[in-house]
Amino acid sequence: MRDAAVVGTGLCKWGVRKATLKELAQEAGKALFDDVENLRREEVDSLFVGCALSERLAFQSYVAPMVAEQLGVKPTRMMARTELACVSGQSALKMAYMAIATGLSDIALVVGLEKMNLPDMAETQASMACVLDREWEGVHGMTAPPYFAMVAQRHMHEFGTTQEQMAMVSVKNHRFSATNPYAHFPKEVSLERVLGSPLISPPLRLLDCSGITDGAAAALLVAEERAKDLTDTPVYVAGVGQAANGNLTVNLPSLTSWPTMRRAVRDALKMAGATIRDMDLAEVHDCFTISEIIEYEELGLCGKGQGGRFIEEGQPNLGGTLPVNTRGGLLGCGHPLGATGVAQVVEVVQQFKAQVPEERYVGGEWGLCHNLSGNANNHGVLVLRRS
Amino acid sequence: MRDAAVVGTGLCKWGVRKATLKELAQEAGKALFDDVENLRREEVDSLFVGCALSERLAFQSYVAPMVAEQLGVKPTRMMARTELACVSGQSALKMAYMAIATGLSDIALVVGLEKMNLPDMAETQASMACVLDREWEGVHGMTAPPYFAMVAQRHMHEFGTTQEQMAMVSVKNHRFSATNPYAHFPKEVSLERVLGSPLISPPLRLLDCSGITDGAAAALLVAEERAKDLTDTPVYVAGVGQAANGNLTVNLPSLTSWPTMRRAVRDALKMAGATIRDMDLAEVHDCFTISEIIEYEELGLCGKGQGGRFIEEGQPNLGGTLPVNTRGGLLGCGHPLGATGVAQVVEVVQQFKAQVPEERYVGGEWGLCHNLSGNANNHGVLVLRRS
Repeated sequence: MRDAAVVGTGLCKWGVRKATLKELAQEAGKALFDDVENLRREEVDSLFVGCALSERLAFQSYVAPMVAEQLGVKPTRMMARTELACVSGQSALKMAYMAIATGLSDIALVVGLEKMNLPDMAETQASMACVLDREWEGVHGMTAPPYFAMVAQRHMHEFGTTQEQMAMVSVKNHRFSATNPYAHFPKEVSLERVLGSPLISPPLRLLDCSGITDGAAAALLVAEERAKDLTDTPVYVAGVGQAANGNLTVNLPSLTSWPTMRRAVRDALKMAGATIRDMDLAEVHDCFTISEIIEYEELGLCGKGQGGRFIEEGQPNLGGTLPVNTRGGLLGCGHPLGATGVAQVVEVVQQFKAQVPEERYVGGEWGLCHNLSGNANNHGVLVLRRS
Repeated sequence: MRDAAVVGTGLCKWGVRKATLKELAQEAGKALFDDVENLRREEVDSLFVGCALSERLAFQSYVAPMVAEQLGVKPTRMMARTELACVSGQSALKMAYMAIATGLSDIALVVGLEKMNLPDMAETQASMACVLDREWEGVHGMTAPPYFAMVAQRHMHEFGTTQEQMAMVSVKNHRFSATNPYAHFPKEVSLERVLGSPLISPPLRLLDCSGITDGAAAALLVAEERAKDLTDTPVYVAGVGQAANGNLTVNLPSLTSWPTMRRAVRDALKMAGATIRDMDLAEVHDCFTISEIIEYEELGLCGKGQGGRFIEEGQPNLGGTLPVNTRGGLLGCGHPLGATGVAQVVEVVQQFKAQVPEERYVGGEWGLCHNLSGNANNHGVLVLRRS
């Protein structure tokens, strides 16, 4: 089986954009084609697009051909869109990886995107209720904020995690996003500001939550034999993991323990022949501050229930045990559903290629990306290795 | 790279169903688990779901976890949903194939499904306008029937194809669907009835068009080393092809020539080490009668423009050059968008396993499935081989 490498990346500016779904794709795609100088666009043989809710939020289905048309690519080997809510983007990356590994594709473009800000935001809010089971959960208003609020309450109850510790995640990630001109929220926030922000779903406050964001991200994956032609620093997909429970909250084994995340991390690291200690940086799915705290634990960076202390000690900062979410995470960058999983990989690649600002540069050789969806019932992991 | 084999299949009854999206999946899934006796459900490590428009037609996104929950499977290796309009189902099969070929999965379940009949069918009609580009085409009412009506008009103009020849495709496919208890339209229709059916978009009449159907189909793909444990007759995925133009009708090279279909057919046959003459049967995408006529041509079964004569001579019937659409095709079975591509493979597998009624039995060793989407800008092909 062939190795697959990410050789180029692109982002559009994320935020509340006066731009259509199509225009977001175009901006990120242009940035990617600018990044990969030796590529002729006609060489792209496959296209995988991650997008979650465009039928509702942009009245547009058949999203992959729309992106193909807009970017001027004509896939002659494979094309598809993936939907897996917040893991839509990482799913597209995995399809591209598999297409290259099997030899079905040599050069595969991946675009993750989502248009979420509408003239009537009630439409966006309503649409989020079709992610979880519409008969059993959506109908009762079970969207992400109330679900993760329950998770936070339970984590506080079981382990003594505090609102201050959760707020520290937001402070850290905004400190990073302040270095990221593509971020929706490129400004630092103080602990006091997080703790004083409006209550959304107790105990979660506004600044504990990731934003409703328009955005796109692109990555080009190629077969190993083409990688060196296209960049000096190919970044290989070394490990792939994913694990899921079913769908209903009532059937989850626990709110605060995510065994499917542990499984996905274990499988991806095993495939990469690496351990979590080998990682130089990690992008994890901080849809809410409590998520990142649990992710420290499930990554094995600290013991179960010690995630609050881990952030309090500054371990996920630059120079700590493992820098986490250096682009600013979902909290600092916003969370355009289909774009997030791709943007996490973009950050790792841009770190390895020293394309990020000095203030957040880590570099190194190994990176891990973790993307979750739904009621944290599904976790996907990619391990990346610099050549 | 490992071979992947389809070892079991399942269908629900297709039609205007008083059933939810979830219930359709459950019926097809149960049929599949009944078909694969030696399988323990916990062994399913991956799930790929093809579904096109559930966000609009069932107010349900995150469809793969919904199916996982309903069928009681907990994917520990991979899970995703694919959307590519009418090729959503075949895309899911291709992901499963790749997951097994790469070793990321050993046992992958594929479910294609769509719920299309709603209390207010105006909602279904409107939703179909978000498939083609909503800014340039959907807004002008460019959905499938007017598009394929233009194709038919042009084919009649260029090659002298007649409405009678198109109607013969519908007669043939309904003759087959009359043998298929799962079909939406399990009754024969006469040539006169097709030609006298209401005009939908000239020259296409009601019985030139596939139906708006609720349905689901399931297939189990496994690694070659497990195949013989689970069935006496594994059916291998021998060839994979796909090719696409962009998206806008104005940029298509031709209405009546589909070079991307030729490319996809060529690639899939080449990978399989076979020619079209080796095929014992083919399932092709007869969303409209004119489509199947063009597909005879692009498969290389007859010369360009000779598709009308090909059906007139009875060549795609049992005993002809190549039996086409023995399950009844989209015209006879209906076209639940995400289910169709999976159901095509189900038919080939059930043929090879002699699980179909005598009246349409072909059997043999080689089958080809062709699935198209949008304005015929994207074509997918799978070539299947009996062990």
